[in-house]
Amino acid sequence: MGEFVNTKLTAYADRVEKYMLAELEKLQNQTVQKNFSVSGLFDAMRHSLTAGGKRIRPALIYAFCQACGGDLQFADSSVCAMEMTHTSSLIFDDLPAMDDDDFRRGKPSCHKAFGEATAILAGDALICAPFSVLAQDSVLNPEQRLQLIRILSECEGISGMIGGQMMDMQFEQRTDVTAGELETMCLGKTGALMQASCQMGCICAGATPEQIESAGNYGNYVGLAFQIIDDILDVTSTSEQLGKPVGSDAEENKTTFVTLLGIDQAKARATELTALAHQQLEQFENAEFLHELTDMLLTRIN
Amino acid sequence: MGEFVNTKLTAYADRVEKYMLAELEKLQNQTVQKNFSVSGLFDAMRHSLTAGGKRIRPALIYAFCQACGGDLQFADSSVCAMEMTHTSSLIFDDLPAMDDDDFRRGKPSCHKAFGEATAILAGDALICAPFSVLAQDSVLNPEQRLQLIRILSECEGISGMIGGQMMDMQFEQRTDVTAGELETMCLGKTGALMQASCQMGCICAGATPEQIESAGNYGNYVGLAFQIIDDILDVTSTSEQLGKPVGSDAEENKTTFVTLLGIDQAKARATELTALAHQQLEQFENAEFLHELTDMLLTRIN
Repeated sequence: MGEFVNTKLTAYADRVEKYMLAELEKLQNQTVQKNFSVSGLFDAMRHSLTAGGKRIRPALIYAFCQACGGDLQFADSSVCAMEMTHTSSLIFDDLPAMDDDDFRRGKPSCHKAFGEATAILAGDALICAPFSVLAQDSVLNPEQRLQLIRILSECEGISGMIGGQMMDMQFEQRTDVTAGELETMCLGKTGALMQASCQMGCICAGATPEQIESAGNYGNYVGLAFQIIDDILDVTSTSEQLGKPVGSDAEENKTTFVTLLGIDQAKARATELTALAHQQLEQFENAEFLHELTDMLLTRIN
Repeated sequence: MGEFVNTKLTAYADRVEKYMLAELEKLQNQTVQKNFSVSGLFDAMRHSLTAGGKRIRPALIYAFCQACGGDLQFADSSVCAMEMTHTSSLIFDDLPAMDDDDFRRGKPSCHKAFGEATAILAGDALICAPFSVLAQDSVLNPEQRLQLIRILSECEGISGMIGGQMMDMQFEQRTDVTAGELETMCLGKTGALMQASCQMGCICAGATPEQIESAGNYGNYVGLAFQIIDDILDVTSTSEQLGKPVGSDAEENKTTFVTLLGIDQAKARATELTALAHQQLEQFENAEFLHELTDMLLTRIN
């Protein structure tokens, strides 16, 4: 089972990386035409875009597009746009004023490698570039493109990821955060991009409104389960298994699903959310990969 | 003459401020529906959006829309989107890692008033929000909306403002910058948003491709002249006239149009660009305000 999912994940990841680098080259050609000398900025963007990671969001977009009978090429621009957006959020997260992280996936974080000012400009560029990528995708009709642009803008905005990050920062100053508040925050910080990814995959394939809604619900459940499992792994895993330091939440006295619910109840909640996620997939004919991916995300060790 | 222009500028500025605050309220309602507690983020966005300024870009959009026979309401979403974009760039410019400015238009800069992390999130939110504002504007047809989205994304991106800022940073490390390079940089840093504003106003009104092109050229000329005059005023004006410290360019050993060309030649270049700008307006029937605005930008003292 794991092999089938991993093979597909790798194929999706390769595809999005190729598409992103091609888009980056198009952008670079535009700057060359204008005699702009900004290669340092492209180096910074490329550094962060090619730093790897699980590429979960691209997989969700491609998989929902295929589950709705769409061709992969319908989803390429959305996948590229989403991964640029996600990457920009990582660049900003790592900045000294935010989480102040020197490393990301074993490589120096963007500001460590290129300086803070260049990292900020690279992050800014990766927020705005996706919208022209989507606006110009000629395999999608204008209504699809506008719907994708609206969803991308909203999922990363104040009622999505950015709002979630803001709440996360505020929660660090508090000791009375409830499990309900923590879920609300996670639905923004982690869930919003996952929810949007699932919806965007459906839209690319011309799915029904019911399918788009189910896919969005699926994304919320999986996003929340994903964060709960992250919190559990930070306590139960080793840094070798995780590929990053463990125990950082406890060190920072952070309120997590584990500190609020305990490990057993946190695991139960993740299992419950995963079951709900599976249910949402009933709307889709060709959802074998998504079912297996859902289980893999629940049972992952890193 | 000055009175006619100023009255219109004030009316345009009032209109865009109302529209922006209404859009902010819509965004805030969305967060309330999701139980997000992010009022601090809205305070930061509102602080920067209402800090005033000349609102030149809104005026250009509205004026070109009217010069092409369009109603002001066709341009509202573009004006709001552009001013949010411009504001985000000011928030990032003022950050410690960039220009490190504590004040902006006499008020504390965003990170001074709300902390650096909140300022970064507010800046991010102001980059992405404009795209959903444009995508949902029901008075424009889908093709217009997509064209506006593409232009906004590109003018602020790597081949526009962000690319210009990157070059500006690099130029600070060099002593051999040429006048040609400085113009190229300014066409990105200052010109790109002005060029796009003029083009967007035309698109809102359903103008011809020739008009859109002339408007873009006009924006480039005016953007460049604007920067040259800024450089001149930094040497010839007093801080009372300018409302901000003067002489900062010389203090920072910055290469400017004045250091490269001398004051007389810099003035001559600004006058030449202004004449070229006037020429571009011949394509438009109702361009009286734009002609007068052009002269006012050239002869301004602050």
